[in-house]
Amino acid sequence: MVALGGHAFVQHGEGGGHEDHLRNAARICESLMTLVERGYQVVITHGNGPQVGVLLEQDERSRDELPGFPLDVHVAQTEGSLGYYLQQALLNSLRKRDIRRFVVTVITQVIVDADDPAFENPTKPVGPFLSEADARQREKEFDWIVGEDAGRGWRRLVPSPFPRKVIQQDMIREAAARGHIVVAAGGGGIPVRKTASGDYEGVEAVIDKDRTSGVLATEIRADLLLILTNIDCVYLDYQSPDPRPLGAVTLAECAQYIKAGHFPPGSMGPKVQAVHDFLLDGGARGLITSPDRLSDALAGEAGTHFIGRI
Amino acid sequence: MVALGGHAFVQHGEGGGHEDHLRNAARICESLMTLVERGYQVVITHGNGPQVGVLLEQDERSRDELPGFPLDVHVAQTEGSLGYYLQQALLNSLRKRDIRRFVVTVITQVIVDADDPAFENPTKPVGPFLSEADARQREKEFDWIVGEDAGRGWRRLVPSPFPRKVIQQDMIREAAARGHIVVAAGGGGIPVRKTASGDYEGVEAVIDKDRTSGVLATEIRADLLLILTNIDCVYLDYQSPDPRPLGAVTLAECAQYIKAGHFPPGSMGPKVQAVHDFLLDGGARGLITSPDRLSDALAGEAGTHFIGRI
Repeated sequence: MVALGGHAFVQHGEGGGHEDHLRNAARICESLMTLVERGYQVVITHGNGPQVGVLLEQDERSRDELPGFPLDVHVAQTEGSLGYYLQQALLNSLRKRDIRRFVVTVITQVIVDADDPAFENPTKPVGPFLSEADARQREKEFDWIVGEDAGRGWRRLVPSPFPRKVIQQDMIREAAARGHIVVAAGGGGIPVRKTASGDYEGVEAVIDKDRTSGVLATEIRADLLLILTNIDCVYLDYQSPDPRPLGAVTLAECAQYIKAGHFPPGSMGPKVQAVHDFLLDGGARGLITSPDRLSDALAGEAGTHFIGRI
Repeated sequence: MVALGGHAFVQHGEGGGHEDHLRNAARICESLMTLVERGYQVVITHGNGPQVGVLLEQDERSRDELPGFPLDVHVAQTEGSLGYYLQQALLNSLRKRDIRRFVVTVITQVIVDADDPAFENPTKPVGPFLSEADARQREKEFDWIVGEDAGRGWRRLVPSPFPRKVIQQDMIREAAARGHIVVAAGGGGIPVRKTASGDYEGVEAVIDKDRTSGVLATEIRADLLLILTNIDCVYLDYQSPDPRPLGAVTLAECAQYIKAGHFPPGSMGPKVQAVHDFLLDGGARGLITSPDRLSDALAGEAGTHFIGRI
């Protein structure tokens, strides 16, 4: 199970247009070939922050003239578009090597609890920055929760509930077991909950993609949860003058470092927590590294390795 | 193989918002349960005209402020969103009946010939209506082909090449054979072609969804190509004061009626042609009817039945 960072398709300083997506998808998929060449069965998850941001801002700008769609539908749209970028790039990388493997993107719904405490306290800012007046108007008209975001303006806040179950887990496991490369759970998955009548209904929320990756890795009994990010490995005292790279840690050491507050909530925290929970639930190995160092990391010469059961 | 009409999610007179999509998806998926209850393996394809229209118009309106994306990426987005609407509605219809079958939406690329004559002569209008001045400006700036559309204004014209091969055909057949309900080739599929170096690249084109449905039905060796539309059956002399409903036709009769010009190009023509080609390529049965009459049609009491090989 490979989880790609939210900014995999749009690097810092890029505009986030089509050409950026093509180039970054090609670069990442080339780095993933090292897994394919070693014969791994591969499931890929990814973020969608910048892409959902564009869709929400487009809705906002054309609000008076065109129908807008809720957040769950926008997540589904990005699963389609980013799945397409990835599967096209993967197929091209495979063809270059004369490797015949199929690639499939699965539109993925993820069940969240209707009574998840996150619904009482929406904290995740989404969509464009608004003036306070516009934010207040939308609060009244659409029942949005709004708040100031880091002093840069007002934004909509949505809940970030815990992923309870990936609905398509069996098909994802089945396709991977047959040797297909599977792209799934983009953006953390489309959040749905069960209504009183037993129906699924979409909810306007964002599921943390690292959490979903950890849950899905457990569900499909992945051997390895690999999180690709823009740092070569995990560091202790990262913000200090003397950051210490972590080569390998056991589950127990990992739990201790988390407790000591080494990993900041917005960046490395959720990634380390996802790997920790995966190991706690019986997973064997975790690895956090950058696409550039993946090949070295698989050789044990880079990245941070997390050791669970043997 | 069930092909849903392009306006399945947005009926005439509706605004095309989220509630329309939810309601229409629920209605259509309920009608499809008659196939599931009879034990059919089901692959569903669908159109995406209204939804791609909204995305293109949003790109147009936010052109100066936000990155725009090409048509192939928008098709991928609608495969995600419409696949989500369908799979949610299908799962709810299945749960109501205590039927345990999986549902999977496959993001689908379709190969077109780089030298398809359609690229020389783009004919398919897409996106919003523009003034002639705006259309001419985009012709210069983005190399668009533009044209007047039925006296209502200027629009972008894109090619409509023939679908040569559905890249994900094996996985679609495999998933259907295992009993999963598969949603695939939305909007006719994402058009890609091979470059000189052998890579796939997306093309800004629209593949006719009825054609793709016919090609995919042949590729996965479907027993039945079922096209659901808003008319109960196919008529001869449809525009005359005395239209004659067609109950059942052989492949030979079908070819004869096509030749005689009974089926108008914009509506019933491509559907009848797709069924004709499917039968010609070895398919056994075709059926054209409306969702409301599907159950009766399967009992032989409604719709137009097309008879190929036995």
